[in-house]
Amino acid sequence: MKMNNMKCEIDNWLKTYFSDKGTYNKIIYESMEYSLEAGGKRIRPILMIFTYNIYKRDYKKILPIACALEMIHTYSLIHDDLPCMDDDDLRRGKPTNHKMFGEAVAVLAGDGLLNEASNLMFDYCRNNISKNNLDACTVISKAAGVDGMIAGQVVDIINEGKDISEEELCYMHINKTGQLIKSAIVSGALLANAHVNDINILKEFGEKLGLAFQIKDDILDVIGNAELLGKNIKSDDNKDKNTFVSKFGLEKCKELCENLTLECLELLDKILKDTKILKEMTLFLLKREF
Amino acid sequence: MKMNNMKCEIDNWLKTYFSDKGTYNKIIYESMEYSLEAGGKRIRPILMIFTYNIYKRDYKKILPIACALEMIHTYSLIHDDLPCMDDDDLRRGKPTNHKMFGEAVAVLAGDGLLNEASNLMFDYCRNNISKNNLDACTVISKAAGVDGMIAGQVVDIINEGKDISEEELCYMHINKTGQLIKSAIVSGALLANAHVNDINILKEFGEKLGLAFQIKDDILDVIGNAELLGKNIKSDDNKDKNTFVSKFGLEKCKELCENLTLECLELLDKILKDTKILKEMTLFLLKREF
Repeated sequence: MKMNNMKCEIDNWLKTYFSDKGTYNKIIYESMEYSLEAGGKRIRPILMIFTYNIYKRDYKKILPIACALEMIHTYSLIHDDLPCMDDDDLRRGKPTNHKMFGEAVAVLAGDGLLNEASNLMFDYCRNNISKNNLDACTVISKAAGVDGMIAGQVVDIINEGKDISEEELCYMHINKTGQLIKSAIVSGALLANAHVNDINILKEFGEKLGLAFQIKDDILDVIGNAELLGKNIKSDDNKDKNTFVSKFGLEKCKELCENLTLECLELLDKILKDTKILKEMTLFLLKREF
Repeated sequence: MKMNNMKCEIDNWLKTYFSDKGTYNKIIYESMEYSLEAGGKRIRPILMIFTYNIYKRDYKKILPIACALEMIHTYSLIHDDLPCMDDDDLRRGKPTNHKMFGEAVAVLAGDGLLNEASNLMFDYCRNNISKNNLDACTVISKAAGVDGMIAGQVVDIINEGKDISEEELCYMHINKTGQLIKSAIVSGALLANAHVNDINILKEFGEKLGLAFQIKDDILDVIGNAELLGKNIKSDDNKDKNTFVSKFGLEKCKELCENLTLECLELLDKILKDTKILKEMTLFLLKREF
């Protein structure tokens, strides 16, 4: 299954999941759907499913968990874009959620997506009771939390305009983006009941991939194609954000990103299964232009 | 175990849970703790534990789930108070979270508490794997979500200054407050492996109690003691909010509240166990002055 086909499948699952729901609260569904359908590459759910597919073929079973992860990612974007946070008007080339629905509904739509992700995960675990499934959901939930994605976000926000140490910058990036990407891979392996040795390799792979992904994001923010990115480039620079590029410079970042990608590929070689599609995805993430 | 003792136990659990946590992200812990420790009556966790106690005595075991519910309640208050929502400066007599920590951190602290509640629930289920435990957490998570508490909040926000139907008002209140209170009771019974007949009775009890609680809230907003409430009375009226009192008048509301309370007590009589403490709590909630 190619990336693009999988993306379509995820898009469809998300599209139908919310349809015809809601009564007096219809606007919250419209608002959540709006941001979910605004596109995005669906990298996290695809990574989860491709990792799962190393071990098992019945990936349709875990679509609800993969889409829960996408909901968590989407909620974080809605809240990040709020006027009190990054104050962005555009996301993926479309008006941000609060520009369309107002701030109050945008806050609630973010809350709703995070909450719906939990609903999906609890439902999955109820219908497929096992320690591994619960571990997978725990990994996702913790990666999203105050010692994961939210930690990265808070360190980012409180340090705008301030110069932070390399250590703090790494902490911020590993948490803000890396944790959720890592959780996609680790949870995919757990849901597939992969051997603990493989899970440990995939943990390391996920960490490196997450970091490479964020460095690439910072690079694209400086040299990327605004049209493809669907947002203004140099937006981080304009906001006086701490980024890898502002800290280490462009060339060093490109080198870091390539080295991490090579290390990712070497780690996948240690898994005695067919990891071709994950390797392709790793290279895609490095070479992407948006 | 009396209500006050149980409240202390919950306060202590919450106080120690977050202590010494965080590194670069310390401010998010401070912000979450600030709102968690701002007091409150801890009605939801106490209701859960008292319901559990009808069947089992080892209530300390479920303190993490009870406190997860309090975290969900607290996150909803932080987000409700935001300038783009109810724009409140005071909560329980203290400055609201965003007044202390700024809007960005307040948004993230709310997100963090909702997320931490999920972490606690997944951890509990991993360490105590059973269908009933997963059902209990599902009940809580759904009650908090877009067809529960968030639905009530969104209907409230989008209808400020508009006259809504009785049906919509009930929908709003049942969801905004009632669902979480009902979930406290139903999850307490599920965690204790209560018989399905009892669970059905307790569902009905929880529904009526939740509604009575919200009507009482509306009454207190009009005639309550501002000092005890820790907020300005008539705040709903000032904001042109739809409330039971604005719809049905004060006398009718008092009558409704008393009738619901009587129905609650009758339902508890159908349970062939000692429900004295839940009855006391029901009466306390009716007679409270703050």
